[in-house]
Amino acid sequence: MSSSSAAPGRGEKAQAATAKPPMREALVAAAFQLFTERGYEQTTVDDIVALAGVGRRSFFRYFPSKEDVVFPDHERCLADMTAFLATSGAEHEPVRRVCDAARLVLRMYAENPAFSVQRYRLTKRVPGLRAYELSVVWRYERALAEYLRERFAGRRDGTLQADVIAAAVVAAHNNALRSWLRSDGQGDSSAAVDHALGYVQSAFGVAPAPGPALDEEPDDVVVVVSRRGAPLWRVVQEIETTLGRD
Amino acid sequence: MSSSSAAPGRGEKAQAATAKPPMREALVAAAFQLFTERGYEQTTVDDIVALAGVGRRSFFRYFPSKEDVVFPDHERCLADMTAFLATSGAEHEPVRRVCDAARLVLRMYAENPAFSVQRYRLTKRVPGLRAYELSVVWRYERALAEYLRERFAGRRDGTLQADVIAAAVVAAHNNALRSWLRSDGQGDSSAAVDHALGYVQSAFGVAPAPGPALDEEPDDVVVVVSRRGAPLWRVVQEIETTLGRD
Repeated sequence: MSSSSAAPGRGEKAQAATAKPPMREALVAAAFQLFTERGYEQTTVDDIVALAGVGRRSFFRYFPSKEDVVFPDHERCLADMTAFLATSGAEHEPVRRVCDAARLVLRMYAENPAFSVQRYRLTKRVPGLRAYELSVVWRYERALAEYLRERFAGRRDGTLQADVIAAAVVAAHNNALRSWLRSDGQGDSSAAVDHALGYVQSAFGVAPAPGPALDEEPDDVVVVVSRRGAPLWRVVQEIETTLGRD
Repeated sequence: MSSSSAAPGRGEKAQAATAKPPMREALVAAAFQLFTERGYEQTTVDDIVALAGVGRRSFFRYFPSKEDVVFPDHERCLADMTAFLATSGAEHEPVRRVCDAARLVLRMYAENPAFSVQRYRLTKRVPGLRAYELSVVWRYERALAEYLRERFAGRRDGTLQADVIAAAVVAAHNNALRSWLRSDGQGDSSAAVDHALGYVQSAFGVAPAPGPALDEEPDDVVVVVSRRGAPLWRVVQEIETTLGRD
């Protein structure tokens, strides 16, 4: 069930009665219509089911609470992400893999820009929804971190690196996503997220796609370092200066 | 008002009556005694004020809600962090500065290990408290990010870098903090956090303290790079191999 057919304004009562769009999406549409007209706090579950033309039990069959109807697709997206990571193999570079997993979240938002922008504005206004969103973001971050912890199991500081990289990926993704939402869903969200994730990949020593494969012959670079004990950051600083990057 | 004198078990009714420890801390102690004995959900504000020997109004003078009494020092710590960052100057390297700001949070936890460990166990069991904690963590992260955004104002991708580094710092700090809490507050929490933050500093191209100052003469490293267009990650990979690091 995709959010693209849960566009606010498309799920009027008459449509719900004909089961097009399905009941779950009709409930989402009715809820957003009322949240927009009356405000989130002033809308009850009873109001929502009355507009959608269904009973209370139908609402709670799909949504544990009023908050959940605001984020109808996160559970599906979390399940997709978990499945995506579970099907990873040793051939997948781990940092790139969690970046690809994060792109699943963007795709969910980008499926329906108008709905996503409307929800973004609503969430900004209602503290309870912001708290709910934080808990969802935390679950995405934990899914990425758990995957990386497994992949880094043999490393010294594996759990530290996993937690830090997962947090960095989520922060980069959300920086680009929020810019796009603030711009009313204009522009290329996918390119913005790619750019943001590229920053994380370069920070953690992995080539942003489309870079050369890691197993390519490393004969395109010759490096001479004067002292064995020199700190790596200083070496990188030197190279950046040499290459003319900021 | 420090959490060190809010140790559970130290704030019995008789002490509250003599104003030692002060009322606020007596309320925290009474609350934790009841949370431990009865469980968090089964304890009401009325129970807490009865044990502390004060009125309901006194409770709400100090704490907006029952959740707030579980985290009595975060507001002070957030204020300390904000003040610390506000007094920063151009001479402070920004990434190191936010790492130092994060250490203020550790210090708060380390002031009273027994209380911190008890709260950690309680928070793990109560979903409402976990949600509360996420919102507090988010406020710390935003404080760090806002500071970095100002410092990076002239940079391309300044807000992206600020958000990612702030998230990485918080994740590294919390990785070390939680390991320490899981070990019942044994071991050197400060060294563990320093190590974790060192990883973030090296990832973002800044020397972990105590490294050489950034304005030192850069004559200790000579680097030759064969091709101008070579990707930086590949260069770093080469250097790591040359230096014999993993």
